Amino acid sequence: MTSTPCILLTGFEPFGGEPVNPSWEVAQALAGEMMGSLRVESVQLPCVFAQAPQALQTALAQYSPRAVLCLGQAEGRSEVTPERVAINMLQARIPDNAGAQPQEEPVIPTGPTAYFSGLPLARMVSQLHHCNIPASISNSAGTFVCNQVFYWLQHTWGRSDRLSGFVHLPCLPEQATRMAMTPACPSMPLEVQVRAVRELLRVMVESLQLSG
Amino acid sequence: MTSTPCILLTGFEPFGGEPVNPSWEVAQALAGEMMGSLRVESVQLPCVFAQAPQALQTALAQYSPRAVLCLGQAEGRSEVTPERVAINMLQARIPDNAGAQPQEEPVIPTGPTAYFSGLPLARMVSQLHHCNIPASISNSAGTFVCNQVFYWLQHTWGRSDRLSGFVHLPCLPEQATRMAMTPACPSMPLEVQVRAVRELLRVMVESLQLSG
Amino acid sequence: MTSTPCILLTGFEPFGGEPVNPSWEVAQALAGEMMGSLRVESVQLPCVFAQAPQALQTALAQYSPRAVLCLGQAEGRSEVTPERVAINMLQARIPDNAGAQPQEEPVIPTGPTAYFSGLPLARMVSQLHHCNIPASISNSAGTFVCNQVFYWLQHTWGRSDRLSGFVHLPCLPEQATRMAMTPACPSMPLEVQVRAVRELLRVMVESLQLSG
Amino acid sequence: MTSTPCILLTGFEPFGGEPVNPSWEVAQALAGEMMGSLRVESVQLPCVFAQAPQALQTALAQYSPRAVLCLGQAEGRSEVTPERVAINMLQARIPDNAGAQPQEEPVIPTGPTAYFSGLPLARMVSQLHHCNIPASISNSAGTFVCNQVFYWLQHTWGRSDRLSGFVHLPCLPEQATRMAMTPACPSMPLEVQVRAVRELLRVMVESLQLSG
Repeated sequence: MTSTPCILLTGFEPFGGEPVNPSWEVAQALAGEMMGSLRVESVQLPCVFAQAPQALQTALAQYSPRAVLCLGQAEGRSEVTPERVAINMLQARIPDNAGAQPQEEPVIPTGPTAYFSGLPLARMVSQLHHCNIPASISNSAGTFVCNQVFYWLQHTWGRSDRLSGFVHLPCLPEQATRMAMTPACPSMPLEVQVRAVRELLRVMVESLQLSG
Repeated sequence: MTSTPCILLTGFEPFGGEPVNPSWEVAQALAGEMMGSLRVESVQLPCVFAQAPQALQTALAQYSPRAVLCLGQAEGRSEVTPERVAINMLQARIPDNAGAQPQEEPVIPTGPTAYFSGLPLARMVSQLHHCNIPASISNSAGTFVCNQVFYWLQHTWGRSDRLSGFVHLPCLPEQATRMAMTPACPSMPLEVQVRAVRELLRVMVESLQLSG
Repeated sequence: MTSTPCILLTGFEPFGGEPVNPSWEVAQALAGEMMGSLRVESVQLPCVFAQAPQALQTALAQYSPRAVLCLGQAEGRSEVTPERVAINMLQARIPDNAGAQPQEEPVIPTGPTAYFSGLPLARMVSQLHHCNIPASISNSAGTFVCNQVFYWLQHTWGRSDRLSGFVHLPCLPEQATRMAMTPACPSMPLEVQVRAVRELLRVMVESLQLSG
Repeated sequence: MTSTPCILLTGFEPFGGEPVNPSWEVAQALAGEMMGSLRVESVQLPCVFAQAPQALQTALAQYSPRAVLCLGQAEGRSEVTPERVAINMLQARIPDNAGAQPQEEPVIPTGPTAYFSGLPLARMVSQLHHCNIPASISNSAGTFVCNQVFYWLQHTWGRSDRLSGFVHLPCLPEQATRMAMTPACPSMPLEVQVRAVRELLRVMVESLQLSG
C-alpha cells in the first residue's frame, strides 16, 4: 500500500525472442517521477495471456492509482500511438511467453464487443506533435496480450470519470538494428520515448485537475 | 582559403515544399567541430541540377579538403544509409528548386556508368550499429540531385586514395509529423542524426590516419 | 420489391479524386449472378456520411436480402481483408464526396462502442487462400464512410442469426499506376477481385444453408 | 542448336526456402511462343553464384539469341520492375542454394563498376501501364544472384546494338499467402505476370525491327 496518490504505468516484459521491450524500458525510466502531486508507479506485466490481467489487478489493488497508462511494443510502427479501442478478442499469431496461442477467444466471455480508451487521445497526439515527436491515434491494438490488457483494464477499472488507456511504442533502435529486416523496422530512441510518455502523463494529470 | 586541414561536409537546402532538410541541419550542427586535427567545413548545396555541381566545385576549391562527405534527405527511410554507388543518370520525379525536371539524361555525358563510394561503408554501418543507431548500406542513391552530386563528386574529386562519398539521412520528426502520411513517414531525431554523422566523420578520420 | 431471394452486395462510388472504386466495379460485375438459389443484388452507396446509411436502408427495404455483404476500397492493402469489427466513431482524414469531414463523432449516438462482423471470417480467409488469393482478417475498418456503413449495418440489420459484414478490397492496378507512389501502391486485378468476392458469397450461401 | 531465330528468356529456380519462383513460372509459360519471327527459348538458371553465369553462357552458346531477357523474383515489390543498372558487387544477405554467401566481392574483378540495361526501359514501363499492369523502373537489382547474372550478361554479351537486360517480378499470390507477413507481402497473379512479360518481349521485338 502506498500513501502517495499515484499514476500506474505498466510495461511488458520482452517477447517474441527479443531481449528487451521498449514499454518496460520506458516505464522503468519514469518510475518514481512526480507528475504534479502524483507519483509514477511502474509495474511490469508478463507477456502471458494467463497471467497479465491478474498482474494488472494486483497492481491496481496495491496502488489504488488515480489514473492508469499501459504501454506496449508495436513492431513496425514509427510513431507513438495511443490506442482508440480495445476489442473482446484474443487471436495470437505467435505464442505468448508461456506458449499459449489462443484463436478467436474472447478476453471476457460476458463482456461487450469493445471499449473506447478513457484517455484524451486527440490532446495527447497534439501535445506530442507540439514536442516534435511523431504520434497518431491507432484504431487497432491488435489481438495479442496488449489488447487483452487494454480490454481488461477498461472492463474492470475504466469508468467515464476515470483516466485509463493504452499506448503502443515503436521498437528501440537496437531492436531494429538486430532485426535487419528489409525494409528496415522503424524505431525511436529510448530517450525520445521516455520524453513522449512523460508528456502523455502530463496531459493525463492536467485532465485529472480539470475534471477533479 | 583556409589554412586548417579540413573535411568538407555538405548538406542540401530544403526541397519538395519542405521548410527544412535534415542534411543541412546536421551539416550546420557539426560546422567547425574538430575531428582529430581536421576541422569540419560545412557548405550548403542548392537543390538545383544546374547549380549543385558548381557549388560543390567552389567548396572543393575553397577548402581543399582532406575528405568529403555529402549528405542528403531520403524520405521514407528509417535508417542512416551510406550509399554504395552513384550512377550516370538524371531522372527527376519532381521538379528541382529551379523547376527543372531532367528525364533520362547523363550527369556527365562522357562519364562512365557508375562510381562506387570511396567510403569504408561496412565499417561505417558497423560503427553506427555499435552506437545503437539504425543504419545500412543502400544500393541506390536515386536519380535526383543527390545522385547527381554524388556522381559528380566521385568523377571529379574521387580517387582510390581519397575518401569521398554520400550518405542519405531520414526525415526529421517534425517533417514526418507534418506530412501526416499513411503509413507514417519514418524519422530520426536531429540529435541522433548529428551523433550519427559525427561517428561517420570519426570513421573517416581514422581511415585517413591508417592510410596516411 | 423482388420476389427472388437475394444477397445484397454493396460497393461505393469513387472518392478521394479517384475515377473508379474497385468495390463498385466488383459489385457491378457480380450483379444478377445466382449463388445457389440466391440472386446477387448490387447497389452503389454514395461516399457521403449524410447519405450512405439511408441508401443502405433503402436497399435493405427494397430487397429484403437473406444476407448482406458491403465492400469498400482500402488504399495501400495488397490483400482482400474481411473486417473483424465496426466501431462507433467517425473521424475523417479527408472530406467525403459532399465535403463533410466529421471529427470524433459517433455513427449512432446511442449505439454501443462496436460490433463484430456477422460473417464467418476465418472460413472466408481460408477459402480465398485455397484459391491462391491473398487475404487476411483486418482488425480495423478505419473511421471513414466504410466503417460508418459497416457499423450502421450491424446496428440496424445485423443479428446473431443473420449474415452481414464488410470486406475491404485493394486498389485496382490502373489506380496504383496512376498514383505513382513511392513505394508503389499495391493492387489486385479486377478479375481476381471478382473471383474473390464470388468465393466469399459462396461461403456465405453455404453458411446460410448450414444454419437454415 | 536451334535454327529458328530466338529470344532467350531466363528464370531462376526457387530459393530462400520457397517452393516456387515466379521468374521460372513465367519463363516456362512463355516457352516456345513466337514473338513475330522469333521463338522464345526459356532456360532455368540455378540460384547459385558459382553456377549461374556458366548456365547463362551455355544457353547463349546453344541458342545464339537475337535478344536476352533475364527474369528474377523481388520479394516485397508490387510492380513489374525493369532494372536500370547492374553493379559489380556481390553481397549476399542470405546463402545461395549452394550455401555460398559472398560479402563485398566483385562479379568480375576486372569489370567496370556498372552497366546500364540494354533494354528500352521507359517504353517497356509505358507499355505495361497501357495494359493496366503496375510497373516502374527500378534503380537497384540488389547484390544477390539476380544482379550477378544481370551484370555478367551485360559484361559478356551486351553491346550497344544488342537488346539485353533484367526484369524483377513480384511474388506470386500463393507465396504471399504462405509468408503470412505483417504487412502482407504484395503479389501479382501468374497470369498477369505472364501477360506482362509477353508485352515486354513484344516491345523488345519491335525495337529489334526498328533497329534492324
